[in-house]
Amino acid sequence: MLKNINLQKISVIGMGLLGASVTMACRRAFPKVFTVGYSHRASTRKKSRQLNVAHQIAQTLEEAVHNADIVILATPILTFETYFKSIAPFLKSGAIVTDVGSTKHLVHQWANKNLPRTVFYVGSHPIAGSEKRGVEYARDDLLTSARCILTHTARTNAHALKILRHFWSELGCNVVTLAPKKHDQIFALISHLPHVLAAALINGSDFEDMKFAGKGFIDTSRIASGPADVWMDIVLTNHHNITLGIDQLVRQLGRMKKAIAAQDAAKVKDLLETARAKREKLIAYKLKKRELL
Amino acid sequence: MLKNINLQKISVIGMGLLGASVTMACRRAFPKVFTVGYSHRASTRKKSRQLNVAHQIAQTLEEAVHNADIVILATPILTFETYFKSIAPFLKSGAIVTDVGSTKHLVHQWANKNLPRTVFYVGSHPIAGSEKRGVEYARDDLLTSARCILTHTARTNAHALKILRHFWSELGCNVVTLAPKKHDQIFALISHLPHVLAAALINGSDFEDMKFAGKGFIDTSRIASGPADVWMDIVLTNHHNITLGIDQLVRQLGRMKKAIAAQDAAKVKDLLETARAKREKLIAYKLKKRELL
Repeated sequence: MLKNINLQKISVIGMGLLGASVTMACRRAFPKVFTVGYSHRASTRKKSRQLNVAHQIAQTLEEAVHNADIVILATPILTFETYFKSIAPFLKSGAIVTDVGSTKHLVHQWANKNLPRTVFYVGSHPIAGSEKRGVEYARDDLLTSARCILTHTARTNAHALKILRHFWSELGCNVVTLAPKKHDQIFALISHLPHVLAAALINGSDFEDMKFAGKGFIDTSRIASGPADVWMDIVLTNHHNITLGIDQLVRQLGRMKKAIAAQDAAKVKDLLETARAKREKLIAYKLKKRELL
Repeated sequence: MLKNINLQKISVIGMGLLGASVTMACRRAFPKVFTVGYSHRASTRKKSRQLNVAHQIAQTLEEAVHNADIVILATPILTFETYFKSIAPFLKSGAIVTDVGSTKHLVHQWANKNLPRTVFYVGSHPIAGSEKRGVEYARDDLLTSARCILTHTARTNAHALKILRHFWSELGCNVVTLAPKKHDQIFALISHLPHVLAAALINGSDFEDMKFAGKGFIDTSRIASGPADVWMDIVLTNHHNITLGIDQLVRQLGRMKKAIAAQDAAKVKDLLETARAKREKLIAYKLKKRELL
């Protein structure tokens, strides 16, 4: 449980799949804490009220963040700078501000530039989601067993970091910390690149051919069904690392092509077996960490 | 049900996941037909007997195919030519020979060259499987709702094709037919290329980075866990089409990279949204065809 803080109100800005799942998980993990959700869309506010995902769905940003102990941005990344500016005047002194964005380096810069010195920013990236979107797909167990990365710099308040570590742990996450630059490098390769790759695979495929697709193709391309606007923001806020990742992948495909074109059986088998063994080692690690359920 | 044929014995050579699933499905779909399995490995024959996947597990190839109405090869593709030669002397006149290999053009050539004119070859490719391998993972419903491609050329006997169409349909498959060359072109792009891609993604990833992988990375790379020897055979017997597929994918990745490096938001969103919409259309098609269960 949270220690040394009298947590009374948690506000989540953005009632999409992830934002609403956070409010729902908060209600379950912190039954005495007042949870508030906000969406700029009247239709989403209405749906969120109907689905009862938070104690209150605020009409305005001011109402949403007023007196909140923790404010969590769960909107598309490219809206974060504007939201930091908009909520800045209404944040109480000592409030902790975080977000659930998939890139972190730029977000730290925006927070640093736009939030008052009286509040504490820490980056959060819960590795949870789905190719589905919208409050109607929210679940109070979406974060269960998910890894959550907290990002911090030399400026980050240690007490705020500690509180958020407790917060996400109570919501069921395995919390680890990283510097925002390192975070963005890693996620370019293991999250953003696979998305770009899945989209490239689909874009390069003929629809009539795709009708023959089996489970392999369906799984390999699954993340290409994710919301384009959300992923556009991720890609644009991590463009340098992702282009490096594309270059690296193209080099790997070149190695494959060379071995296949030469019909070099030993080399082809070696490349496939190396991948197989490495992935099996990854699955074993993930099962041990209980991150695959 | 099969018409115009008094089907009495079906033989499957190769008791891996797919071969044993075929014998199990035969026992369910054709309870009066005698099913025989064969493996060149004594240990696999023993396991197959223990698991009771067929009425008989033959000790020799001759015993396995003797008097069989349908003989199905379910071994790695690069063994097919040798098996055609080995079984040729023991096949009864009028027997239908097929296989479950993932490439078809070379297999038709091998069959044509090595099987006697008294038997009928038709290619089969049931789109079923798993990254698991071995008779212990066999299931009698593995083929349920799977698409099964039958390949035929001008030489193919129409009655044998008709019988195999009934056969796979009774096992639960949605049967379609293709020319072997067309089959290999399509599957290079929607099956073999995704496998190569998944392996390249894993090979290009640092293991420490992969520890942060979420569900997206796990799904995108799933097929890389498939057996390297099986996939080596597939890749080598379809090398030309696969290298063309790699070239095409690299071009698509180049388009992505260009838009991302230029931070061209409209173009990035367009590429991602095109992929998203196209995949959703594919999923809708597959659901309608009941091929996604």
